Amino acid sequence: MAPAETIPIPFLTAAKALTPKLSYTEEIPKDVVTFVPDDKAFLRHTKVVQYNASMLEDKWFSSGDEFTLDFGGHRTGYMSFYLDAQGENVDCPARLRLTFGEVPGDVVEDFYPSKSWISTSWFPHEEAKIDELPGQVNIQRRHAFRYVRVQVLEVSSKFKICFRKIKCHAVTSACKKVAPVEGSDFNIIDTVGLRTLRDCMQTVFEDGPRRDRRLWLGDLRLQALVNYVTFQNNDLVKRCLYLFAGLRMDQKVMASLYERPEPRVSGDYILDYELLFVVTLLEYVEATNDISTGRELFGICQNILERNHQQYIKDGVFQMTPGVWYFIDWHDDLDRFASMQAVFVIAFKAAQSLANKLDISVDYTEDIRLLSEGSLALYDQDKGVFLSNGQISWASQAWMGLAHVLPQEQHIRAIQIAMQNPDAIRANTPYCYHYVLEALFKNGARDACLALAKDYFGGMVDRGADTYWEAYREDDSTFSPYDDHHNNSFCHAWSCTVSWFLRL
Amino acid sequence: MAPAETIPIPFLTAAKALTPKLSYTEEIPKDVVTFVPDDKAFLRHTKVVQYNASMLEDKWFSSGDEFTLDFGGHRTGYMSFYLDAQGENVDCPARLRLTFGEVPGDVVEDFYPSKSWISTSWFPHEEAKIDELPGQVNIQRRHAFRYVRVQVLEVSSKFKICFRKIKCHAVTSACKKVAPVEGSDFNIIDTVGLRTLRDCMQTVFEDGPRRDRRLWLGDLRLQALVNYVTFQNNDLVKRCLYLFAGLRMDQKVMASLYERPEPRVSGDYILDYELLFVVTLLEYVEATNDISTGRELFGICQNILERNHQQYIKDGVFQMTPGVWYFIDWHDDLDRFASMQAVFVIAFKAAQSLANKLDISVDYTEDIRLLSEGSLALYDQDKGVFLSNGQISWASQAWMGLAHVLPQEQHIRAIQIAMQNPDAIRANTPYCYHYVLEALFKNGARDACLALAKDYFGGMVDRGADTYWEAYREDDSTFSPYDDHHNNSFCHAWSCTVSWFLRL
Repeated sequence: MAPAETIPIPFLTAAKALTPKLSYTEEIPKDVVTFVPDDKAFLRHTKVVQYNASMLEDKWFSSGDEFTLDFGGHRTGYMSFYLDAQGENVDCPARLRLTFGEVPGDVVEDFYPSKSWISTSWFPHEEAKIDELPGQVNIQRRHAFRYVRVQVLEVSSKFKICFRKIKCHAVTSACKKVAPVEGSDFNIIDTVGLRTLRDCMQTVFEDGPRRDRRLWLGDLRLQALVNYVTFQNNDLVKRCLYLFAGLRMDQKVMASLYERPEPRVSGDYILDYELLFVVTLLEYVEATNDISTGRELFGICQNILERNHQQYIKDGVFQMTPGVWYFIDWHDDLDRFASMQAVFVIAFKAAQSLANKLDISVDYTEDIRLLSEGSLALYDQDKGVFLSNGQISWASQAWMGLAHVLPQEQHIRAIQIAMQNPDAIRANTPYCYHYVLEALFKNGARDACLALAKDYFGGMVDRGADTYWEAYREDDSTFSPYDDHHNNSFCHAWSCTVSWFLRL
Repeated sequence: MAPAETIPIPFLTAAKALTPKLSYTEEIPKDVVTFVPDDKAFLRHTKVVQYNASMLEDKWFSSGDEFTLDFGGHRTGYMSFYLDAQGENVDCPARLRLTFGEVPGDVVEDFYPSKSWISTSWFPHEEAKIDELPGQVNIQRRHAFRYVRVQVLEVSSKFKICFRKIKCHAVTSACKKVAPVEGSDFNIIDTVGLRTLRDCMQTVFEDGPRRDRRLWLGDLRLQALVNYVTFQNNDLVKRCLYLFAGLRMDQKVMASLYERPEPRVSGDYILDYELLFVVTLLEYVEATNDISTGRELFGICQNILERNHQQYIKDGVFQMTPGVWYFIDWHDDLDRFASMQAVFVIAFKAAQSLANKLDISVDYTEDIRLLSEGSLALYDQDKGVFLSNGQISWASQAWMGLAHVLPQEQHIRAIQIAMQNPDAIRANTPYCYHYVLEALFKNGARDACLALAKDYFGGMVDRGADTYWEAYREDDSTFSPYDDHHNNSFCHAWSCTVSWFLRL
């Protein structure tokens, strides 16, 4: 059966129909806390519990007062409280400042001045002026947070205010309850991963529920993988695939998109992400057996492969082209040539598998052969690693490992050699780490994969992660791809895949 | 017929049933303006028009940009706009600061630090973080303003924003169209008065739609007087009377009240205001012939008079009592004894008139006689003025003039002598000026009243008033009863009565 026989559905209409209903969960704060500077703590501050948050019912605040709430865990949601007021005369509005923290630094350190090259409008603070006192206050903006710093900026001297019934109305489209994997070593590591995915799962898979809040194609693949084995909201994956399909520009599947006010793409295009659309669709069909969606979108996969092959591949070898964004990792020194070569192999292989599964007649055997040959040419037999313009990196070994151009044990060895080489370019983000882990796993090194996952994600947990972080350097909590850690996401889509590995 | 025969209605229930429906009017900004410091301008700044506000449709703004709107006139209402966004990538929220100005200083000068002894939480600025761009932005807080300073605090460098369809959704319960009085001298003076009352008339007669936003008993009387001859929303007066009646504390009618979240009084009690409740009810009944309401509330008037007579009057003479608030005027040096003596006379006379009108049998003749004698004792035959513990003030002459304890011409003369005496304590607020004007008028000096009104209110107009101000010293635009002119109301209830005099 050929794809032309499927009934055409406008992709955006289909995506809209798949908009999930979010579940709402009320959470209450656990403690009122302070933080003391601590050079020995990875997150630079140590928490000190002042009193149980239930005691706020008896605390009365004036101008200049403040307190910091700890909800005990990360959530994406809306804050509300009942603002009581008592005194001689409740004669003016209350002006408050609220600062929402994913990590202690958010509620302790000054946001300004900032040298971030992305907008500081993401910084999670806001002012609230409450005219009707006492009364219910529902903060309209959605935040992602564990901590909230509450500052009473201005009330009059004639009354005081009391914060009652403080709540976080948490939202997610991850509605299914999922038990963490058993085993004390991995239970918490998995829980943090599940929480990360849960808080990113909204009406799309957001990259970070605090900053960006958009759907990135590269992140989608990783979230979808975890979703299939946990929350199983597979229609959300389908919705995201339709959104990308419906918002192509000049045929291209773009790198990211926004849902609101209307679905639209950002200007960003990332070649490796577009190629991964094919992989993501294959995995969706494998997970759901939704042959019909696979057939609807297969034409887009063909277009992706054939267009990009024509543009970037010469004699089976990837041609680096200035001005095109290859992501692979946030790393200034990384040479991406070998990785991109591998991504082409991976995408063509995925398309072939998908076509076979969908009973669509295409044959990419020759393309795959040539691309694999081009890949093998980068393998240095003596060193036992793939070189990317002479550079040894974890990324190159990882992507080549998933391209499966050598026997499994050689791929495992390549990864391990690179990781043991202090001069190799390391993985800088959980995204890149994921591909290292996946390459180990897919080549049969399950124990090595889990040991590394335990070391890496467990290290984040040990260093204070409630949800996994967008950027993580074991020796520097202020590392940021954006030149300001306050603009990092501390709950990030591409960092949740440990929960996938643990269930394979 | 005795008041006991009327059917008792719970006052607050009656008040609630009288809640008016507000009318909504859309206004659009006129110009984009700047202000330049100007020592010669009373309001310290001179406006420079930059361009017509319609040209904002073609203006694109980045972080750090700002502009100031002039709506061309004062309004109480809600601002809205459509925030357009264009660029390479609309990739983050827009954070804006909006500052709403009744006068230029509000949008030009820094609010902080402030030495105001009332709360600075009234300062009319707020932050808005807009996540969905482009999109409609409806500012939720009601503001009172002519000018709006719009500051783009933070967007990203990847896009710019444009403010389209900026509107003020003006609200008022003064729904009737009223033509200003004819005559070029008074037309604008009247228009400003009508606008002042209109913008204060909401679900109660507010004192100021920007600051305080509550119903004050003293202000109510003056607004009601203007209302009867202009907008004629007489049910609003009735609602306010019921609110005061329903919220008495220890029998007392309190000085002010709030409507929201639930009707409640402030802790403030002002003796002269409570006595004026009687006058206000009389005038309401005279204006509406609503005998039934008059009868319902007459018992409260009796209680006011008899309770306060017992507490404060000895042998027909007012006894100053420490710790009790007599308002009369915002003036640190004013001796209020004579004024308060007169207010007692006025209240008793009003009660007698009201009883006669309602066919209720009371007789205050003897009280009035004794209080009048006590008043006359303060009259200095030689100087031709009333002395208050030796002090000559405009206020004493005004209130005595309304007590009508002398022939009209002597009252007129007392007022004029005091006004010509440079050492006399002057009127400091439009509230006190009103009583000077009313005393002139009620004693037959209509021309002198209108000349003074023209001089005073016309002077405010000449100095830049769109709506009449709470506080006004001809030589100092920064005078404030609150130690910070930024906390003055520049649209104030008690300053609208020129429109009453002009129609008598």
